[in-house]
Parts: sequence; structure tokens; C-alpha cells
Amino acid sequence: MKAEQNKNRATLLISCPEKPGIISTVSNFLLEHQANIVQFDQHTTDPKAGMVFMRIEFDLSDFDASYDKLQEDMHQLGEEYNMKWQLSTKRERKRMAIFVTKRDACLMELIWRVKSGEIKAEISMVISNHNDLREIVEREGIPYYHIPISAETKDEAETRTLELLEGKVDFIVLARYMQILSPEFISKFPNRIINIHHSFLPAFVGANPYVRAFNRGVKLIGATAHYVTNDLDEGPIIEQDVIRVTHRYTAENLKVAGSHVEKHVLAHAVAWHVEDKVIVHGNKTIIFT
Amino acid sequence: MKAEQNKNRATLLISCPEKPGIISTVSNFLLEHQANIVQFDQHTTDPKAGMVFMRIEFDLSDFDASYDKLQEDMHQLGEEYNMKWQLSTKRERKRMAIFVTKRDACLMELIWRVKSGEIKAEISMVISNHNDLREIVEREGIPYYHIPISAETKDEAETRTLELLEGKVDFIVLARYMQILSPEFISKFPNRIINIHHSFLPAFVGANPYVRAFNRGVKLIGATAHYVTNDLDEGPIIEQDVIRVTHRYTAENLKVAGSHVEKHVLAHAVAWHVEDKVIVHGNKTIIFT
Amino acid sequence: MKAEQNKNRATLLISCPEKPGIISTVSNFLLEHQANIVQFDQHTTDPKAGMVFMRIEFDLSDFDASYDKLQEDMHQLGEEYNMKWQLSTKRERKRMAIFVTKRDACLMELIWRVKSGEIKAEISMVISNHNDLREIVEREGIPYYHIPISAETKDEAETRTLELLEGKVDFIVLARYMQILSPEFISKFPNRIINIHHSFLPAFVGANPYVRAFNRGVKLIGATAHYVTNDLDEGPIIEQDVIRVTHRYTAENLKVAGSHVEKHVLAHAVAWHVEDKVIVHGNKTIIFT
Amino acid sequence: MKAEQNKNRATLLISCPEKPGIISTVSNFLLEHQANIVQFDQHTTDPKAGMVFMRIEFDLSDFDASYDKLQEDMHQLGEEYNMKWQLSTKRERKRMAIFVTKRDACLMELIWRVKSGEIKAEISMVISNHNDLREIVEREGIPYYHIPISAETKDEAETRTLELLEGKVDFIVLARYMQILSPEFISKFPNRIINIHHSFLPAFVGANPYVRAFNRGVKLIGATAHYVTNDLDEGPIIEQDVIRVTHRYTAENLKVAGSHVEKHVLAHAVAWHVEDKVIVHGNKTIIFT
Repeated sequence: MKAEQNKNRATLLISCPEKPGIISTVSNFLLEHQANIVQFDQHTTDPKAGMVFMRIEFDLSDFDASYDKLQEDMHQLGEEYNMKWQLSTKRERKRMAIFVTKRDACLMELIWRVKSGEIKAEISMVISNHNDLREIVEREGIPYYHIPISAETKDEAETRTLELLEGKVDFIVLARYMQILSPEFISKFPNRIINIHHSFLPAFVGANPYVRAFNRGVKLIGATAHYVTNDLDEGPIIEQDVIRVTHRYTAENLKVAGSHVEKHVLAHAVAWHVEDKVIVHGNKTIIFT
Repeated sequence: MKAEQNKNRATLLISCPEKPGIISTVSNFLLEHQANIVQFDQHTTDPKAGMVFMRIEFDLSDFDASYDKLQEDMHQLGEEYNMKWQLSTKRERKRMAIFVTKRDACLMELIWRVKSGEIKAEISMVISNHNDLREIVEREGIPYYHIPISAETKDEAETRTLELLEGKVDFIVLARYMQILSPEFISKFPNRIINIHHSFLPAFVGANPYVRAFNRGVKLIGATAHYVTNDLDEGPIIEQDVIRVTHRYTAENLKVAGSHVEKHVLAHAVAWHVEDKVIVHGNKTIIFT
Repeated sequence: MKAEQNKNRATLLISCPEKPGIISTVSNFLLEHQANIVQFDQHTTDPKAGMVFMRIEFDLSDFDASYDKLQEDMHQLGEEYNMKWQLSTKRERKRMAIFVTKRDACLMELIWRVKSGEIKAEISMVISNHNDLREIVEREGIPYYHIPISAETKDEAETRTLELLEGKVDFIVLARYMQILSPEFISKFPNRIINIHHSFLPAFVGANPYVRAFNRGVKLIGATAHYVTNDLDEGPIIEQDVIRVTHRYTAENLKVAGSHVEKHVLAHAVAWHVEDKVIVHGNKTIIFT
Repeated sequence: MKAEQNKNRATLLISCPEKPGIISTVSNFLLEHQANIVQFDQHTTDPKAGMVFMRIEFDLSDFDASYDKLQEDMHQLGEEYNMKWQLSTKRERKRMAIFVTKRDACLMELIWRVKSGEIKAEISMVISNHNDLREIVEREGIPYYHIPISAETKDEAETRTLELLEGKVDFIVLARYMQILSPEFISKFPNRIINIHHSFLPAFVGANPYVRAFNRGVKLIGATAHYVTNDLDEGPIIEQDVIRVTHRYTAENLKVAGSHVEKHVLAHAVAWHVEDKVIVHGNKTIIFT
């Protein structure tokens, strides 16, 4: 995991309407551009009239000579086949901003996994509407910005936030960030804001979900990581998991158990996003793990 | 599991307000009645002013001589301490009726586990509003009753059902029974009707939940077993579990995956009910496993 | 899952040394033979000098016209690229023989999943060295052969077994079959005999593993499904799982818990084998699920 | 979880031969000493001639007045009933020393859970045969001692270690400590040294287990936490868990996956030890969770 990143490796994600020969077309295209395919994943929703999704990792033996040309030619191929596509290299790590409020579990998990090399990204900054987590962030050498938010200052706060992010961040992780982002803000980072929230069976809508889960005697506590859309907590799901609990758990114990599921689910979602393993189609995801 | 049932064993379930010395009181009571405690489980919600729940398994060396007296004296103890209590012996197996519609997975799982001795109960009868599952039931030597139900005949059908159950059944399992029982019917079997239903995070209320779970791209499919109350699907939860799914699952695959979780969750819930391991308090359960 | 099998669908499994352009080569080959790729999975052990594994599901619009030619031409392609390959169609279901001794859980699970359509295969026969399970097999309309085995009659029994299997069976499932097959027998079904056995952490070699697991107080009980090789219990692993247990489980309870894991692990392994989702390479498997 | 510890609470663990009335005896004893039982767990191996294990949490309304007397009288009760017993209060947190070598995952998990209050203990010191982890320990304000060990200096190093521990430590956690403790050292902390090690099904004895697990294509990677005895990796098991892996995991990936299981399994084991939820009997544990 800590191994030197392969500097000649790139990843291509493609979504397009199903068409006979599409795999030949794409693999021939890559071969012509001196790309050696290392991993090829594909999913078809319906062989007759559906969508096809591909994720291809490949090495370019002479990266500098061929990458730009490949990227340029992809535009043409993409148009021809009505593709949504995304090409990225392992030369530069993705840069994330982490938004937090006061709870530290998810934040710490992300910092750890970045340090250990499990999440191959950089944390450009942490932004919070509170100052509580400053110390544990700054001692890791990560910039921490305190941007308080109230109903009156929300617009201004988001403007300030966008200025901080400008040119420094590829995606955002809401690691238990207890503020709702505006549609304008979200539109700047389509499918590039990852949120984590607790999940229950059944769902407990409204305030104090852990108290209500406790009162209902649930046997499982869950968490869901998803991309943020304007529909609160309703964006495409990236990962989910649960943990088993018993009648001996207090509402507070449930919360702690929940925070463990949350941090792992979020860490997986972020790692997959960073490694370009997620394709969003409509309101769902294809995860090539 | 198939071992001969201990004919001298009984189980006592108690719920009562917390009171200092309550464990001494109960254990002394049992000792005075020549009961040898084999397993003692207890749970306190709040040592100051909460409820205490106990489950005690014990052997009576001279069962015939002492059981009736013990039962009689429990009434007095129960009144004194404001107890809800339940005493049962392993001399007689609990008798269940299974209600089904057309799907066989949960039904078959229950039949199997009863045959293998994992669920220490008897299946007195299977009742269905359809005839589809008759053969696989009757070949096991279990009576199968077909009671069709329509909006007009519902009252009549429930009356007929109650007549069949009369004196022959201790509890009911709804093993994917696609009819809603009336409050009158439910009131005849308080905390003695177990239902199983699929569960999702998030919840998908309304028709075709599997199609909607598919469209949302959920990563987990779950199931919840609970006691039936008048509040549809909202009774005390006995057991829950989930199974992991991927984008490759069709809506139909999700349904099949769901049926596997359902049958195991239901089997656990029924086994615990049969072994008197469940205490219901308000809308939640204490499970002494 | 119960949907009509696609009569025009085939599956191609390939293992060969890594070579630039291999994916183009294979996808072009299929395109030239009018094959429309529905699912394409690939795994490379090492892009420089490793092995590449592929699983391709495809539809042939005019199956009868093109399948034989495709199969014929694959021989040439296979030789050219030093491929091990396997081509199968969904026109004919794989036929399995199930070998059992006295325990029924794994056998019943397989029968059920075949009936429900989850395992898309046929059970041609059940062979046992005992008569205990005859009734539950025959009532499903499946032939049951009793072939007793002793040290003296082993050779003869295997010969008789091979005669029964001859031309009627594509693979064998040892569903808790308590006899060891001879190397000669195994060599007739390379990577086509699936076994299930219990697994513990740590391993308990020798007699009475459940008693020893009980004495050691293990917290997990596991099962492993694998292809049978001459190295007892050491063939390529197809699937594994565990179940959580506590100090309250007796050795007998551990055994029952174990039988639940065993049957599910075995059912998954058989389903994947039937759907050509398993490639064996050396002593390990690549599972394309 | 971060709530103020209840200063009037104590926990009593008892192991003794089964005897009719033993629960009455113990609960009456506690009642006579003004102890209000908050949680009572019990397990009997065999009601006829087995062992009985109890864990009792209780509050003393006037702790200072009654605790010493209760403790004194327990000696007498213990002798009378041939009990092994252990009494502890929540007034003082248990103090642990963590032994590490170079890997940080388990260490960091323990530090975090102590800080968050999930593990209600104190970390008195970290001892390592290397200096690699000094910084992340010292910045938490925890003393870090570097005690190098070679074959020649082992005795001396253990002596030095014992001096450091003397009077400052209640138990030891080997958080991926790659040295073997001598029997003399272990005898100083009976059932008070917790170790974590990776576990596989099947077991891979000897060097490079992850490489060998990779070569065998295992589908699960596990971890076991246990008390250290002279029998290497064979002491009483406290907790175990596994994580699912696939053919895409390199040996290095397996190691990372393993480190996640290890840290959670170890954290649970330590938490249970700290909360006096573990009774050791022979080579197995009873865990009252």
C-alpha cells in the first residue's frame, strides 16, 4: 500500500449506451495509444438497450510522449460513442478538503489512513464551523480554517469557503459536518462531495435518532456514505455497513457504536473515490472494487 | 441440540420495577422451592428507578411434587413486587401455526429447523390464503388449511382461522404472509405473533421496495423479525440482519438475497421465542441469548 | 433468478500469460464471431510478467450458425497465446452428483437452491455409503444410490461409482461425505469435485475438532469450500465464512452452528462453479462474482 | 461513554464449583453488605457437577463505610465455597503498559479509545524495543521507554522492563510486539497480558504467513486476541474476528486488511478486560458482554 505510485499508470472511467463491439473499440483505442491494460472492469445494465460502464487501468510505457495525445483523442472517441468519461493519472494525488464540526472519529480515521498510505490522497485543509478540532489537525501539519456559520452569515461563509478551496481541492469530504450546503455550493462539486450519515432499520427521521433507535430496541446500527446532491441524504450511495448491538447498549453506547461504523464506511468510500473506482449513473453508483 | 429435553427444567421470565434485594428475593424463593438454578440472566435499565428483567432456568429435582406449588406461590410473589412474569416448562413443546401466502423460503426453513431439533417446537398447522404450498407441507405430515381472503370475507376468514387455532396453538409465525391481521385477531395473541419483513437503509415505503432499492443502488439488504402489534411493521424488534449486495444484483437478485436474510432472521426469532429468551417491555425487547 | 435461461448466451474463461494487447485480441475475436459481450471480467497478477485471467459472457445473435465455428477457432487462438480456456453455453445445465454420508443439512440446501433456481444446475443423482438420506432424496425425484464402502471394498466401490457417473455427471459435490477419494478417482474430475469442511482459528487437526474448539473457547466457527486435490483439505479455496459463537455454546451447539456456515459456503461455491465464475490457477482461485 | 464513572460501583467476578443455592448465597451476601445489584451475569457449565461463573456489578450507597468490610468478608465466603474471586472498584482506572515494536495501528487504536473514553483505563507507559513510535506516543503525553533487546540482553531487558512496570501497571497489552516474553516474566502477570495475532483458516505456521495466505488464495483474514501463557499463541481466547478479502488483494493488501481486524479485536479484548468482563477458566474464557 505504501509502495511507490506507478508513475506511468492512468485510469479511464467510461459510461455510454450499450453498443456491439464497444469493448473492442475501447481496447483497440488503448492499444493504438501504446497503453497496456492492467485491469479491466465492465458492467452492462442490459445487453440489448442498456448502459455499459467500464473502468480501465493501464500503463503507458512512454507516458510523457503518449498521454496528451491519448487524452486528446479520447474527446473524439467520447463524442462518437456518446460517452461520459474521465481520465486520471497516478502522477498527482487527489487533494481533499475535510469539513468537520466537533466530532473527531471520522476526521481522525481519514488522517490516519492518508498517513498510512491506505488512502492515496492529500488532505489540503480542514474546514470547520468550530475550533474544537484545531489542535489534532494542526499537529499533523494540515491547515485548519475556522469559518463560523449562522443563518445570517451562511452565504458569506460559503463564499469564503469557496475562496479557500479555489484551485487547491479536488473533492470534499463531510466528516460529520453538521451544516447543510447550498445548492450553489454543491453545484460546484458535482459527485465530488462525500457525506456520511447514520442509518437505521427502520429509519428514524427527525431529531435524536439514537434515542429513538434505543427506544425501539434496534439490533443493528448502520452508516451510509453517499455523494451529496440537493436532495438531503438522498444522493448516490457509495458504501453502507452495520454493526450489531444489544439491549444493553444505552443511547450513548449506540452513538459510539455508530461512530465506528461511520468512520469505516466513510474511509472505504473515500478510498474508492480516490482510486477512481466509482461511477455515478443517475442516482446510483457502480463500484469497481 | 437433539438431546432429550430435560423434563425437570422450567424457565421463569420476570419484569418488575427495580428494588434493592430483588435478586436475593427471587433466588431465595426458588431455593425454598427446591429449584436449582441453571442459568440466570438479568438486565437493569436504571439501578435507581428503572425496570429489572430476569430470565431464570432451573431444574426441579422432584418436578411433580414441587412445580404446582411453585407456580401457585409465584402469584403471591408477583403481586408483592408488581411483577409481570411467565413460567414455562420443557415438558411440553410450544405449538406454532405458520401463516403463509405463496413464498416458501421462510416456511421451509422453519420446517427444517423444527425437524433438526434446532427449534424445539411443534408445527401444529400451516394456514394459507392460497394453495401453492400445500404439497411441501403435507408431505411433512403437517395439516395445511386453505382459507382464502378477500375484502368481503376477511372477518369470516379470521373467525374460521381462530376456530382452527383454538386450543391447538401457542403462537403464530407470519412467514411472508401477505395479509394484514385485524386488531381483534392480534389482541388474541399479544406478543405471540412473530412477523418477518424486509428492511432497507434507507427505508423504501410503499410498493415494489426491491425495485426501488435497486434504483437507489443500496449496498445492503436487510430483514427484521418483530412481534405484531396494531402498528403495522412497528412492533418490538426481536432480530435483524443484513446481507451485502452489489450493483450486479438485479431487482430480482436483491429479492432472493433478501429471502435468505429473512429466513435466518425469522428462524432465530422463533427459536428465541420458543426458548423463552425474549421479554417485551413497551415497544422493545430484551433478548437473553 | 428463475427467469428463462438465455439460450444464446455462452461463457468463456481464459488463463494465459500476460501480453500487451491481449484484451483487444480476445474482444476482436469475439466481435468477428458476432458475439456481443455482456460481461467482461479480467484480473492480472502482474502487468509485466504475470498471468491474465478473463471471464467473458456473451450473446450470439445466431447461435446455431456461429457457435461451432467460434469454438473451433478458439482452439487456434488458444494455441497461439498459450491459453487454458473453457467455453460453455447456457443451453445445457451442468449436471452434478452429490455424495453424502448421514448428515442432511448441506444436501438439503443444495436440493432447495436447485429447486428455487438459485443454483442453475441439475442434480443427476445422490450417492451415499449409507441409506439414511434415501427418503428425502427420492421424494424429490432424484435417484439415490447406496454404495457401502469398507477398507476392503473401496476399489470396487469407486469403480461402481464411476460407472454410475459415466456420461451423466459434469461435477461432484461432497456434501459432508465422510470418505476419502482415491487419487485415481480424483484425477477423473480435475477441479470438478467440490468439498466442504469446517474451519477453525486456530486449526484443530485430528479427531473431534468441535470438542477441541469448545475446550479452547473459540469465538468463531468457520467453513471452507474447495476443489478436491490429492492433498486432503488443501485444494484451491472457493469460499469461506464464519459464524460468531459464545461460551454458552456446547460442543454440540458449535456443530450445529458450523453446519449452517457449511451449507451456505458450499451453496455459494457450487453456484459459482455452475455459472463458470471460478478459474483455478495453481493452488488458488480467481472468483469473478 | 465519557460519563463520570460511578464512584460507588464495584464488580465481583466469581468462579466456583456448582452447588445448589449458590446464587442465593451470593446475592444474600451482597444484600447484607448494602450492595445494590445493577447487573448479574451467570454461566453454568453443568448444573450437576460443573463450574459456575458469576459477574456482578453493584453499587454501595455508602461506599467508604461498607467496601472494606465487604472485601474482608468475601475472603471467608470464598474459602467456604472454594471460590476464585476478584473484586474491583470503578474508583481507580486500571493502568496498562503497551508493548510495541514498529507497527502503529494497534497502538494508535488503543490511544484513541482511551482518549475517547471507550476504554476506561489509563496508559501508564509505552515500551518498545525500537524508537520508531516515540513521537506519536510522547505527543499524547504518554511516557515512552526504549528497551532494545537482543539474544544476549534479553534477561537484562526484561529486568529493566519489570522495574519500569513495578507499581505502575495493572496489565500489559502486546500491540504487535515482536518479542517473546520469558516464562518468568509471564508468571508475574497471570491472565494480565493480552496479545493480538493474525489468524487464518487454514493456519499458516512459520514465516511470512501473509505471503502464504496469498498463495493459497484465502477468502478471509482474521485476528485473535488472547491472554499470554507459556504456550505461544495458545492462551485463552478473548476475541476473534475476520475480514473478507478477494483475489485482487496482494500479500501487502492482506497485511493491511489484517491490521484493521487486529486493532478492533484487540480494542474489544482490552475494553472487556478493563471492565472485568472476562473470566478465565482453564484454557478458555467466559465473556460477560
